[in-house]
Amino acid sequence: MRYRFTGKLHQLGFLLLSVSLILSCETPDGTSSNTEVVEAVGNEELVLASWQDGAKDKIINWVDATTTEGSPDFIPVADRIAVFDNDGTLWSEQPMYFQLAFAIDEVKRMAPEHPEWKNNASIAALLNGDMQGFLSGGEKALLQTVAITHTGMSTQEFDSHVKNWIKTATHPKTGKHYNEMIFQPMLELLDFLRANEFKTFIVSGGGIDFMRAWAEEAYGIPPYQVVGSMMGLTYVDSTASPELRKTPELFFNDDKAGKPVGIARAIGKRPVFAAGNSDGDYQMLQYTSTGDGARFGMYIHHTDSVREVAYDRESHIGQLNKGLDDAAKYNWMIVDMAKDWKVIYPYEMK
Amino acid sequence: MRYRFTGKLHQLGFLLLSVSLILSCETPDGTSSNTEVVEAVGNEELVLASWQDGAKDKIINWVDATTTEGSPDFIPVADRIAVFDNDGTLWSEQPMYFQLAFAIDEVKRMAPEHPEWKNNASIAALLNGDMQGFLSGGEKALLQTVAITHTGMSTQEFDSHVKNWIKTATHPKTGKHYNEMIFQPMLELLDFLRANEFKTFIVSGGGIDFMRAWAEEAYGIPPYQVVGSMMGLTYVDSTASPELRKTPELFFNDDKAGKPVGIARAIGKRPVFAAGNSDGDYQMLQYTSTGDGARFGMYIHHTDSVREVAYDRESHIGQLNKGLDDAAKYNWMIVDMAKDWKVIYPYEMK
Repeated sequence: MRYRFTGKLHQLGFLLLSVSLILSCETPDGTSSNTEVVEAVGNEELVLASWQDGAKDKIINWVDATTTEGSPDFIPVADRIAVFDNDGTLWSEQPMYFQLAFAIDEVKRMAPEHPEWKNNASIAALLNGDMQGFLSGGEKALLQTVAITHTGMSTQEFDSHVKNWIKTATHPKTGKHYNEMIFQPMLELLDFLRANEFKTFIVSGGGIDFMRAWAEEAYGIPPYQVVGSMMGLTYVDSTASPELRKTPELFFNDDKAGKPVGIARAIGKRPVFAAGNSDGDYQMLQYTSTGDGARFGMYIHHTDSVREVAYDRESHIGQLNKGLDDAAKYNWMIVDMAKDWKVIYPYEMK
Repeated sequence: MRYRFTGKLHQLGFLLLSVSLILSCETPDGTSSNTEVVEAVGNEELVLASWQDGAKDKIINWVDATTTEGSPDFIPVADRIAVFDNDGTLWSEQPMYFQLAFAIDEVKRMAPEHPEWKNNASIAALLNGDMQGFLSGGEKALLQTVAITHTGMSTQEFDSHVKNWIKTATHPKTGKHYNEMIFQPMLELLDFLRANEFKTFIVSGGGIDFMRAWAEEAYGIPPYQVVGSMMGLTYVDSTASPELRKTPELFFNDDKAGKPVGIARAIGKRPVFAAGNSDGDYQMLQYTSTGDGARFGMYIHHTDSVREVAYDRESHIGQLNKGLDDAAKYNWMIVDMAKDWKVIYPYEMK
């Protein structure tokens, strides 16, 4: 099938990056200065093992207070809803959102079946390895890249494309598979909350189908607990095997003020715990923290230029500015990755 | 706040009823001819106790086949997704969708605070008890009724309106609260599937926020497992207590071909079990039954004119026509309410 670029491409806002950012931003350093393996000597020691004591205590104290019956801060099990941003909160997001890396890799993989793409200057540049030429196409080029790799196929086909990519593609700096670049301390936090009967949800600006393809294996979060941005979807029953076709209009942008909306639509309860890392998560943390009763808001602050990447107020990706300004006002915990995390990635522990 | 009717009212398609139907359709008979209480003599007897043997065996055999490891039809726990329509499948829907009864009751309750409603001929007729006058306003009147009772307020306010209504309002024929008119055999089916590690979801054309207000208590289905039609939603953080405001445009119509779309968006997995009662559920059952591996599609056929209401091919509400025609093709089980169910409502068992 020939792909026809649609007039609705301008609606595809959720993966928008300013054109200059891909080549200009900081990149992670592959070296790992902290491969300390925590020797667990008992159950107590296993909880949040990769967190340094001060940060660990804050989390444990809050969970104790909210899950101990009779405590003034007790939260019934049915209301224990915990929401997590994904990019920069559960896994890395530099030097570009991993979903954009997927889109670029997919253009290259799919190109042989699409000779017509050579007539598109930006896509042709990408195929020739000319990133500057590709980026000179601006937003339009980026959105076309997303559209031709994420839509015009069934949900099942897209799912297998993502699964194949995540099995094979590697990160330009660490050389690791992208799903190895998830944050070990956050895996422990997810486990700890679930062990205390919290339901854990992803609430991300990223594409919902992209995340669902690997999130269950990576985080233990099933597809129906993933909330994300969504493209169009059409039920096609013209064959004996009806399917859902992905179409290139933006249906829902699950970012910024869209996050509380996405939460209300998909979860239907106000969360009591929220973790994010950028101003895109501000409203999600605000909505969580301003509810009645005990609440926990957490910002992951990317402070580690050695083990990961240091960025915040000036970053094109994952900018954290307003969130830092208002952290005290809302009693948000700022996690200092360099100081509070003993390890960043699970592979450092092996 | 004065309510302003919006130009987008025509988009509110999901509660559309033809104007004549409310007064013309059949109504349930309050008498109960079958109050047999099944004396459970063991665990075996407790399973699907309100189902007659033939229908019961079909369900149990399928669940056995799909949950026994080593069985050729085995379904892993992660894929055990069961979806249920609500109106007419989990509770009654005559003489009008219960959500419309809520909307009409709410107009009356809210009227004293809205003197301006008297200037609207249809709403004024409704307030004067003149149903014919109200209905002569056509679709527009019905949609206005939904808009002024479902939007222009926060999600929290709407939730408490629904909760108050369901506690107090009673059905015109049975005199029971609406949430007492849920189907006992379906409660047992939900329990049986959950006991076998199926996740149970509602997938309904009804409003998602309306259902969430009472579905957990009625069915044991939490808000994040309710999929439904959705109006607009806006995050408002202009006060110290940010909230989500409901706005009167239709965001998603979770009916007919919208049901597989709603399932893909909210659940992200193809169901293996689906139950419905009308042609509005056809695509949901079709999408379920045409997936790979063992599948179960079930249509509740409203055949009981004594204990409930008998209706199918010609009904304005819950029309079941194409579903009956194609049941054999897709191997769908047609549940004959009169013959297959020992009781209809839980209160018959007391």
